[in-house]
Amino acid sequence: MDDMYKTTTVDAAESYIAERRSEDSGDRAAMTKHAPKSSDEFEYINWIRTELPPASPDLEVGPGDDCAIMRVKQDRQALKIDTVIEGKHFILSGRGPKPTAVMGPAATPEEVGRKAITRCLSDMAAMGATPSSVLISVTLPTGAPVSLRELVFKGVAKTCATYGVTLAGGDTQSWDGPLSLSVAMTGAMDGVRPALRAGAAPGDVVAITGSLGGSILGKHLRFEPRIAEGRFLAEKGVSAMIDLSDGLSGDLTRICEESGARFAVGADIAAEAVPVSKSARRLAKLEGKGAERALHHSLHDGEDFELLFIVKPNRWKKIVKEWPFDVPIRALGMMRPLAKGEPLVRILKKGEPEALEVMSWVHQL
Amino acid sequence: MDDMYKTTTVDAAESYIAERRSEDSGDRAAMTKHAPKSSDEFEYINWIRTELPPASPDLEVGPGDDCAIMRVKQDRQALKIDTVIEGKHFILSGRGPKPTAVMGPAATPEEVGRKAITRCLSDMAAMGATPSSVLISVTLPTGAPVSLRELVFKGVAKTCATYGVTLAGGDTQSWDGPLSLSVAMTGAMDGVRPALRAGAAPGDVVAITGSLGGSILGKHLRFEPRIAEGRFLAEKGVSAMIDLSDGLSGDLTRICEESGARFAVGADIAAEAVPVSKSARRLAKLEGKGAERALHHSLHDGEDFELLFIVKPNRWKKIVKEWPFDVPIRALGMMRPLAKGEPLVRILKKGEPEALEVMSWVHQL
Repeated sequence: MDDMYKTTTVDAAESYIAERRSEDSGDRAAMTKHAPKSSDEFEYINWIRTELPPASPDLEVGPGDDCAIMRVKQDRQALKIDTVIEGKHFILSGRGPKPTAVMGPAATPEEVGRKAITRCLSDMAAMGATPSSVLISVTLPTGAPVSLRELVFKGVAKTCATYGVTLAGGDTQSWDGPLSLSVAMTGAMDGVRPALRAGAAPGDVVAITGSLGGSILGKHLRFEPRIAEGRFLAEKGVSAMIDLSDGLSGDLTRICEESGARFAVGADIAAEAVPVSKSARRLAKLEGKGAERALHHSLHDGEDFELLFIVKPNRWKKIVKEWPFDVPIRALGMMRPLAKGEPLVRILKKGEPEALEVMSWVHQL
Repeated sequence: MDDMYKTTTVDAAESYIAERRSEDSGDRAAMTKHAPKSSDEFEYINWIRTELPPASPDLEVGPGDDCAIMRVKQDRQALKIDTVIEGKHFILSGRGPKPTAVMGPAATPEEVGRKAITRCLSDMAAMGATPSSVLISVTLPTGAPVSLRELVFKGVAKTCATYGVTLAGGDTQSWDGPLSLSVAMTGAMDGVRPALRAGAAPGDVVAITGSLGGSILGKHLRFEPRIAEGRFLAEKGVSAMIDLSDGLSGDLTRICEESGARFAVGADIAAEAVPVSKSARRLAKLEGKGAERALHHSLHDGEDFELLFIVKPNRWKKIVKEWPFDVPIRALGMMRPLAKGEPLVRILKKGEPEALEVMSWVHQL
């Protein structure tokens, strides 16, 4: 493999996890107004209306009416909905048994609010869209303490403020069931062509941001959605892009499948090029295993929310040269024409290709 | 009370319920392709992509990528999110004990899909917006039969087709919990000023579409969102508008509260002007009660999804004259300046005002 496969900047992808406890205690100290103790939905909504994060001047009508009203320009608009549910996307701290070490930390309510928003932001990033508005629907467990809805909302509001996205509206209710948050998001393309999953062609470089694996140890709660990075890549004209939510093996397979409409394509990646994260190594160690297991986590673990992008070699060189962000980018391999019977994705170990089985996350319905 | 309080056309608001069984059997016969039996989310998504309802030519990227992409014009955009949950917004047929007569019929999976969409359409109507795109997130009970997700989706797709709204994207997962559907919707104002909850002034007429009460007997599953009617009313320049989701007493109180920022306003409605629906009378009869109870249902029952609008008297006359729709409109009373200590909403019984207590739906968190 040539210099295409080098990391372009230092790997700084994992500092968030270490910061989480100090940040969380800071959040709590900063809070002055608390949610009303009443279980009346309308009192809660009135409280929310006093605690809203800064909104775009384009928002004419915010939370509290039948719909929100926001001004939009003539444009392509990106649209997304996503739901996070207790027990699947997070374990809520203080509910149920303490998770074991390999299950990673339980989430604070603020982290649940944050994750619900950042998952959608990551999808916007993967299209090259600039996120614009957020709608959120929260279904609370009946009888949960007021602090739960207060802190979940604080996490949502703070995350919207951090990423400059406008909380336009929402909906809250409760039921005899787990905590569930649905987030819908709009984003603006501002004249940039959206980066789809389809479009990868033989000879294109396969590349990613950041490092992979072991996000269960905390990154899945605190990851940075790669918004500016995704926008930059879309502007430079990538062939295809996806955010790594299910895991590299599955998400790269999806790129191959979606890109295969015109002519069949596969991907080859080099094992030694895969940036194994510190978390992947730490998780393997917790399991009493070594480097091979850490690589496994990098290839198959979900929720790293890094960007996987496919790009023409000449554009890749330009991107490497001009890359202005802290997070590193790295080429993993190359797209190839897919011969009949060949596996979609292969991994080269010491130059020898073998099929990369999809062992990443698949929702079972 | 003068002729302001007359019904303008015949009351045809309840024919839907009677038709539901024949329509449902028709739906089933028309189905040819079934959802895959596999529990793999991706196979389900691939099936959905073959069964999508007609989409706007503005939809460039539909379900299956990180986000949907849709072209929008320079405009005010209406935005809404809403969640319907099993046991609160519907009882699913074939799950749990058969509901008693006063609980109304259990919902078919198609009706659940329909209701999730039409609730948002009704909110769009209440702003005067023309609905444009739909995103839907479905959380299924683990182990539910394939027919559940197939029929819920069919209900969603058929409803989108009926109302000409584009199903742009979605998300499906399962959990050990009840069935839950979150719908996000965008709508276009096309230069029309949005009809807010705030804006009602003393002397304005209080009016509604259709008749009220007893929607639990079936209308809450099969109501017609008043999209064209809401648009017409917004174009004519109503002072305020809301869709009747929680019930007349609560929703009219909300109009008074939201409109009270400039100067305090209340509302008087005449008991004899309230259009008591056949369902309200039927429900009272099932409870072994009479006309007084039927009126109670009309004043306080939720989920009629008719429009409650407040309008200047001269505009009201014009609206009555030009009203082109089948559903009747009717004036119920008038807004008044609110003296200190007076109840927000009063009901006039034989000309004598008494406070109308809010006994409509309030979510308890």
